[in-house]
Amino acid sequence: MTPERTVFYISDHTGITAEIIGKSLLSQFPDEAFATVSLPFVDTQEKAIFAAQQVQDAWKRSSLKPFVFSTLTEPGARAALNACGALVMDIYGHFLGMMAGEVGYPPAPLKGRFHGMGETQTYTSRIDAVNFALAADDGLSTEKYERAELILVGVSRSGKTPTSLYMAMQYGLCVANYPLTPENFEHHSLPGHLLRHKSKLRGLTLSPERLSQIRSERRPNSTYASIETCKKELRQAERMMQSEGIPIIDSTHRSVEEISSIIKHSLGAVQPRV
Amino acid sequence: MTPERTVFYISDHTGITAEIIGKSLLSQFPDEAFATVSLPFVDTQEKAIFAAQQVQDAWKRSSLKPFVFSTLTEPGARAALNACGALVMDIYGHFLGMMAGEVGYPPAPLKGRFHGMGETQTYTSRIDAVNFALAADDGLSTEKYERAELILVGVSRSGKTPTSLYMAMQYGLCVANYPLTPENFEHHSLPGHLLRHKSKLRGLTLSPERLSQIRSERRPNSTYASIETCKKELRQAERMMQSEGIPIIDSTHRSVEEISSIIKHSLGAVQPRV
Repeated sequence: MTPERTVFYISDHTGITAEIIGKSLLSQFPDEAFATVSLPFVDTQEKAIFAAQQVQDAWKRSSLKPFVFSTLTEPGARAALNACGALVMDIYGHFLGMMAGEVGYPPAPLKGRFHGMGETQTYTSRIDAVNFALAADDGLSTEKYERAELILVGVSRSGKTPTSLYMAMQYGLCVANYPLTPENFEHHSLPGHLLRHKSKLRGLTLSPERLSQIRSERRPNSTYASIETCKKELRQAERMMQSEGIPIIDSTHRSVEEISSIIKHSLGAVQPRV
Repeated sequence: MTPERTVFYISDHTGITAEIIGKSLLSQFPDEAFATVSLPFVDTQEKAIFAAQQVQDAWKRSSLKPFVFSTLTEPGARAALNACGALVMDIYGHFLGMMAGEVGYPPAPLKGRFHGMGETQTYTSRIDAVNFALAADDGLSTEKYERAELILVGVSRSGKTPTSLYMAMQYGLCVANYPLTPENFEHHSLPGHLLRHKSKLRGLTLSPERLSQIRSERRPNSTYASIETCKKELRQAERMMQSEGIPIIDSTHRSVEEISSIIKHSLGAVQPRV
């Protein structure tokens, strides 16, 4: 068994940025074993010295030099942490130095600007978008579709709700979602409140096998979850979406983040608000 | 007016990591004006050359050298992009080089490992957590509290729902939330299904002014939104939470990300699953 290397995420604020960068980089070394420690809110010189101590303690317990992903902003705190001697990925130190050289003046070391409330208006619009996604989930509040920037359609359990919520939270987009049901297929056309907003529609689909698996977790051994029902509903939904010219995204092998990024890209002119 | 500098987020996958790093770094130069362009799914050498071309075109249109945040993984594509001559923050190139030196072998350049589905089990547990948060929102499904890893309590509109959803999506934690209402205050104690899980409880509070503002957006000029009602409910809720020894977080000046990070930290032993 590979010995575990300790990885530290050290931040003077939430630590979200440090963790995202770190996890992204670590994922490129899939054969290594890592044990992770998060140290958020390291917002004084004393706490930075204590964090450096913790890194050194971890190093003593293992033969491997710890990896440290740091988004500390304050130069004194950064120096205190760097003194630990481990492999410190000082994200702000490196790239802010490059950017300052180009901009012509040093950065303003204000903590947690990014994952804080930032501009209150932008933050509020993200929370409003989450509330909108909840209010317009699963075919609810179709009278609010005027305000929607995107309406996801697809059969039950095709991934519409998590995608709507993620896009609201991440991009501040007002996303509604509407389930395509056997009732819609009988009418051979989409309801009027969807057709009125055709440019906002995006369809989600997935393989019948995966859909049947997801539905079985909710209702095992039901007609609803059977492979035959899944095949039939997906075929009818895809046919309906294609005939209306709605772009379709296959979610079978895609994460919510991937689906969201693809859809945002397809909206073109709409810029993310965060 | 400051001239705008063009900022590119270039990735061979979703671009989420590049955007988060870039926005975090740009926030340290609050006086600069930036126009941003996202180029996700740059997954071939040809697309990297085309992206470099787009950077050069933007540079020609403005006197300012563009900033490029890149999470391209493939060495050939990285070289093609770096040739654009702008200020390229080649995130993988810099830090992966440092890490490879320590690990003793080069990284495996697989695209989008981090924001992809990754280990299917981890990804599924995040989506399950989102579904749990929806099912156990606003006092629903109290019979599922055994499965909850965290139960948020607080008065109506204190930020419980967005926080629950964010923690589910980001950390894969099963978070329920329960509204404290005048009915609870009359009974002078929390309901049994909450008391049975006391160690999982965390309280949210905020200033009466902010609460009144938030409630007014929903129901303007209502008793529900009046400053008197807000003051009274918050006082009663805080007293109840304090007497039960429930840790309270003030959300008045905190983003969902900040609240989530503080709460996760307070859970101690519970490690994030992503």
